Amino acid sequence: MFAPHTYIERRKKLKEKVGTGIILLLGNEESSINFKDNWYHYRQDSSFLYYFGITHPGLTGIINCDSGEEIIFGDELTIDHIVWSGSQPTIAQLASKCGVNKTLPTSKIASSLKGLVHYLPPYRTKNQWKLSEWLGSPMNFISKGASIELIKAIVSMRSYKTAEELTEIEKAVNITADMHLGAMRYAKKGMLEAEIVGKIQQIAISGGGNLSFPVILSKDGQILHNHYHGNVLQEGDMILCDTGAETTMGYAGDMTRTFPVGHEFTQRQKELYQIVLDTHEAAIAALTPGIQYKDVHLLAGKTLVNGLIEVGLMKGNAEEAVSAGAHTMFFQCGLGHMMGLDVHDMEDLGEQYVGYNDSLNKSTIFGLKSLRLGKKLEKDFVITVEPGIYIIPELIDMWKAENKHAEFINYDLLETYKDFGGIRIEEDFVITESGSRLLGKPVAKTINDVEQVRAESLGLMHE
Amino acid sequence: MFAPHTYIERRKKLKEKVGTGIILLLGNEESSINFKDNWYHYRQDSSFLYYFGITHPGLTGIINCDSGEEIIFGDELTIDHIVWSGSQPTIAQLASKCGVNKTLPTSKIASSLKGLVHYLPPYRTKNQWKLSEWLGSPMNFISKGASIELIKAIVSMRSYKTAEELTEIEKAVNITADMHLGAMRYAKKGMLEAEIVGKIQQIAISGGGNLSFPVILSKDGQILHNHYHGNVLQEGDMILCDTGAETTMGYAGDMTRTFPVGHEFTQRQKELYQIVLDTHEAAIAALTPGIQYKDVHLLAGKTLVNGLIEVGLMKGNAEEAVSAGAHTMFFQCGLGHMMGLDVHDMEDLGEQYVGYNDSLNKSTIFGLKSLRLGKKLEKDFVITVEPGIYIIPELIDMWKAENKHAEFINYDLLETYKDFGGIRIEEDFVITESGSRLLGKPVAKTINDVEQVRAESLGLMHE
Repeated sequence: MFAPHTYIERRKKLKEKVGTGIILLLGNEESSINFKDNWYHYRQDSSFLYYFGITHPGLTGIINCDSGEEIIFGDELTIDHIVWSGSQPTIAQLASKCGVNKTLPTSKIASSLKGLVHYLPPYRTKNQWKLSEWLGSPMNFISKGASIELIKAIVSMRSYKTAEELTEIEKAVNITADMHLGAMRYAKKGMLEAEIVGKIQQIAISGGGNLSFPVILSKDGQILHNHYHGNVLQEGDMILCDTGAETTMGYAGDMTRTFPVGHEFTQRQKELYQIVLDTHEAAIAALTPGIQYKDVHLLAGKTLVNGLIEVGLMKGNAEEAVSAGAHTMFFQCGLGHMMGLDVHDMEDLGEQYVGYNDSLNKSTIFGLKSLRLGKKLEKDFVITVEPGIYIIPELIDMWKAENKHAEFINYDLLETYKDFGGIRIEEDFVITESGSRLLGKPVAKTINDVEQVRAESLGLMHE
Repeated sequence: MFAPHTYIERRKKLKEKVGTGIILLLGNEESSINFKDNWYHYRQDSSFLYYFGITHPGLTGIINCDSGEEIIFGDELTIDHIVWSGSQPTIAQLASKCGVNKTLPTSKIASSLKGLVHYLPPYRTKNQWKLSEWLGSPMNFISKGASIELIKAIVSMRSYKTAEELTEIEKAVNITADMHLGAMRYAKKGMLEAEIVGKIQQIAISGGGNLSFPVILSKDGQILHNHYHGNVLQEGDMILCDTGAETTMGYAGDMTRTFPVGHEFTQRQKELYQIVLDTHEAAIAALTPGIQYKDVHLLAGKTLVNGLIEVGLMKGNAEEAVSAGAHTMFFQCGLGHMMGLDVHDMEDLGEQYVGYNDSLNKSTIFGLKSLRLGKKLEKDFVITVEPGIYIIPELIDMWKAENKHAEFINYDLLETYKDFGGIRIEEDFVITESGSRLLGKPVAKTINDVEQVRAESLGLMHE
């Protein structure tokens, strides 16, 4: 964790922003797999991490904006626990590491919550239940009672990454880069997708941390969140690999590469890959403080459509096609999202507050409703840029039956692409004074560079 | 999954055993990491798997003992889901795979639960909440309302592994054996423990399945459930590695090996390792239908004490020492547990019902209270045998201060072992007509064999 003053300063600022009342921040408990004591890898809540930095399970923090008092609640281990889990620091020792001097047992929480209590919307049912018990409010009412002031205050702090945070994020992105290069070098035809997933996980864990989200790796890249890894890879397939590491402190990396199982892309794959790459570069070139990310997203859409018009999959005017939403046949999701202590940073706080604001509401139409970040970029935001082309047979059938956007989509040609799959290219950037900076070391991205890595890994020389 | 008739037969038998009322079996939902849609690796509930076999999230099954009716409740995907997660079978298609013909949306569950409802104690808060909502009972009352009849009926079925289950379990144990051999070959001084953990996880995932529980791997083997992997390995350290694979169907393997970071154990390590190995072999030799596992556990304790007397760490009469509980200074936990769809099979149903019965209650004294399985062994039980020696400094200090069991423990010598660590050897067995059979392929276990693997992996020849 960072030095105590980082957390002391953050809490001081948070108190000032929220102004009055008690801020209640719940840490996470262990999470059961198939029986109580068989646990998933422990993950602390990110806002708890941001303000207290402690990665132990079962803690709760309160910050009293009026009296200034800060308390960490938790229960000490018994000798039975020590036998099973080893000697552990006391709650007071843990608290002192983030500059909190007062600790109390968990049983004292409810009576400490008098008056106005600010809490965040829970994403784990266990914490929802705790809030329900402590606040004497029914389970179903808990999410509605979350504090908008607290959400806005936290978003206004966590959105701007400090130098020490950027160092941690870059560490995560560098391990992420190793995972991608590892996958690109390891894959061979005849392999199960799961074998590459195993290799990726090995690299993430060997780095001392973990994955920031479950590996998305598939020859069916058109399935955006594909966690099925049972396919056998064949010559001619492309692998879409979207994966990221998380450091021990909880900071995330998130990248995507798409590469051929053989040593070269097919002609068709090359054409669409180049369109995605051009779109990626156009979006990166547009990154600068003050530009709405929604506009970068729409610019990316236009670049994509222009490329698709060139290969004959779309037609008409690119600007009009994007306005009408016709590009969402190929690019159904958003261009990117905030990244930090969460891979989709602060997604638990609500996208309307994180990626949008009072003057820009999140859209509800297909495509734009999946854009997690729409508002103006600012210095020290960390974001992903991840355009893609996804050929989804079910969507083609559905739209074609309605003749939807037929003035922009060449359905006859598109029919012949139904087995194409998907392509995504994703990197992480920090917004600077005048533009943006790529985080982490570069990984092969152009067609030539990717084919070079593949050829080398297959023991072939590549001209 | 198995063929439909397996599940049809199981449900038929379960209905007969429970007799009357509605059996309600909850499948698991996705489980959130740090925001709602960032999910841990999905794991279906094991009893749901046993009776329905379906590994999709969000399903619930009911089996009406009186009318015979069986229903699977679940909700169909929308086109939005298909874009993100790909085309999926319908609920009816899923249900047909396990021979259930009726399906309904989740909203119909509460009204289907009339009269006596049998359910299992939930280990995930989400399922506890669902039960609370459906049954109109407060969250805190749900666990107490679990059906003892249903628990006993399920234990009386899941305890006896069929031939097709044994094949699956053996698959899991074989991958587990590969994980252990992989670790034993991969480890080198200077490595972070996490690097070996990564290697193990790679092998588990490449096998198409996953881990059956988080890897326990440490140079501090005395910490029984040690998930900290931040130590750097040094010559003279021993690595205790306790890990297991889970197949795609959910069956578990679970083994432990302890090996030196160098190519040889030290003299002291050899002495205690041989005691654990002798204890392991004595316990295995005793496995046979009809013997109480508690007696095998106590026999193991006696063998262990005899060895410890020989090296001078204990004194007096072994039988008396075990009766008094003095051996729990070194062997604080149980000899083993049931294994099947869970690594600690059916632990969620309650150890009193799984490992004990009406005529044998689980002990509450230190040591025996950690013995998960105490009752008589029967043909087709699958169990682990895992004795160990753990030198726990905190426990030594505590007992020594009380002069506890001073007639059996040589505290002066023990003080010099405080940095020793821990040793465990664990394998999986099925109880046969006349004894037991080792599951899976053998992995180096004697001092010579382990040192041979280490020497080979370090590029040394071993005499």
